[in-house]
Amino acid sequence: MNENKKPTLEICLTPDAVSFIDLTGKIAVIVDIFRATSCMVAGLASGVTHVVPVASVEDALSYKSEGYVTAGERNGEKVEGFDIGNSPFEHMEQEFKKIVMTTTNGTQAIEAVKNTAEQVVIAAFLNLKAVTSYLKSQNKDVVIVCAGWKSRFNAEDSLFAGALALKLKGDFWWEGDEILFSTHSYSSVKNNLSKILKHSSHYKRLKEHGVENDMDFCLEIDKFKNVPILKGNILENLAK
Amino acid sequence: MNENKKPTLEICLTPDAVSFIDLTGKIAVIVDIFRATSCMVAGLASGVTHVVPVASVEDALSYKSEGYVTAGERNGEKVEGFDIGNSPFEHMEQEFKKIVMTTTNGTQAIEAVKNTAEQVVIAAFLNLKAVTSYLKSQNKDVVIVCAGWKSRFNAEDSLFAGALALKLKGDFWWEGDEILFSTHSYSSVKNNLSKILKHSSHYKRLKEHGVENDMDFCLEIDKFKNVPILKGNILENLAK
Repeated sequence: MNENKKPTLEICLTPDAVSFIDLTGKIAVIVDIFRATSCMVAGLASGVTHVVPVASVEDALSYKSEGYVTAGERNGEKVEGFDIGNSPFEHMEQEFKKIVMTTTNGTQAIEAVKNTAEQVVIAAFLNLKAVTSYLKSQNKDVVIVCAGWKSRFNAEDSLFAGALALKLKGDFWWEGDEILFSTHSYSSVKNNLSKILKHSSHYKRLKEHGVENDMDFCLEIDKFKNVPILKGNILENLAK
Repeated sequence: MNENKKPTLEICLTPDAVSFIDLTGKIAVIVDIFRATSCMVAGLASGVTHVVPVASVEDALSYKSEGYVTAGERNGEKVEGFDIGNSPFEHMEQEFKKIVMTTTNGTQAIEAVKNTAEQVVIAAFLNLKAVTSYLKSQNKDVVIVCAGWKSRFNAEDSLFAGALALKLKGDFWWEGDEILFSTHSYSSVKNNLSKILKHSSHYKRLKEHGVENDMDFCLEIDKFKNVPILKGNILENLAK
């Protein structure tokens, strides 16, 4: 909190930058638009009840005997031996209830905050409005954590962070230059978001893997109303 | 180099991100607009012949016996016992020839690259055009390294990186999302640069120290024509 009695809002453009912020008592909002957090939101909106994010392939495989579907990618490709990859369409297949998931960036970002933040919330364009409403209801300081790509900045997560910050404007006290940058960028490209992101490094990388439909889907705004929250090691939808 | 036979250009939004880039054979362009690289450019344009950037206060003091003027700041304030602080006006006083300098961010960014980059070049709005011409003449890959603030992103360095990238467009092959972001941001705010930056965290921090004139000066474009380059441990102007 600050002298304006509003909770603070800041953005980390990469997960590494989180180490410079005290997350005690704060909500960490994890963003990995292409595609981890989009998959989590889409899956949990479509019949999945549990998603366990883990850091390593070995950790994921250890859940298989408990009836979990193994999901995830490394460098944009499905992990060998896993049941499914990192396409939101795969995560929306109705027969799955429990998924264990590991990805290059998104699940690593969760690892970086889960022991220090008071809450860990999963956000994507797919649930932008629902996350906005939830954060406004909490009256707690918020840090939006962009998963990026292998510790580097990426465009889609930072632009989403700008979109979410603009939605929260007025209810939060903006801290740090990342917000200025992300909100200006989002405002200037929002009418051409898909076109701009087709020039991004990650889009090009994933396009080589033939997953353009995934990415178009991940840029749909407010398709779902659920807000996944970490409880222990499990992501579940916020109970209404 | 790449398949387009143009040298590559990328941006690191924080010095920490440099560790993920192989700088071998590349030119690192160091940017710390408020105020380290602006001071270096202004000083070396105004009669100073040597600037030695060092990481610590102790290192700086060890140069005093060799006739160096000690300069620099910690957290925006002059270091106790130093001859001058981090105002470009102090660095332009004609009686100085040799300055040893340590700052919170700028000299740390130089440390991060000096042992791996082929060249280290100092850039600021004050010498934007001169740096642009020099980089175009070299036909080498370039990484623009934003000093930021204590390992965090800052607005003024990232916007300058965008300005420089736009100047180099066409001659370089842009790599990474940081360039998309920085150039879009710079394009959208360039006509209000000073106004926008007055909302930045570092401007507010420095304003409390009463150095608004410094910052207005640091945003003057193309005031000087010199290009400081690191030779061994010493920054000197590029010989014409």
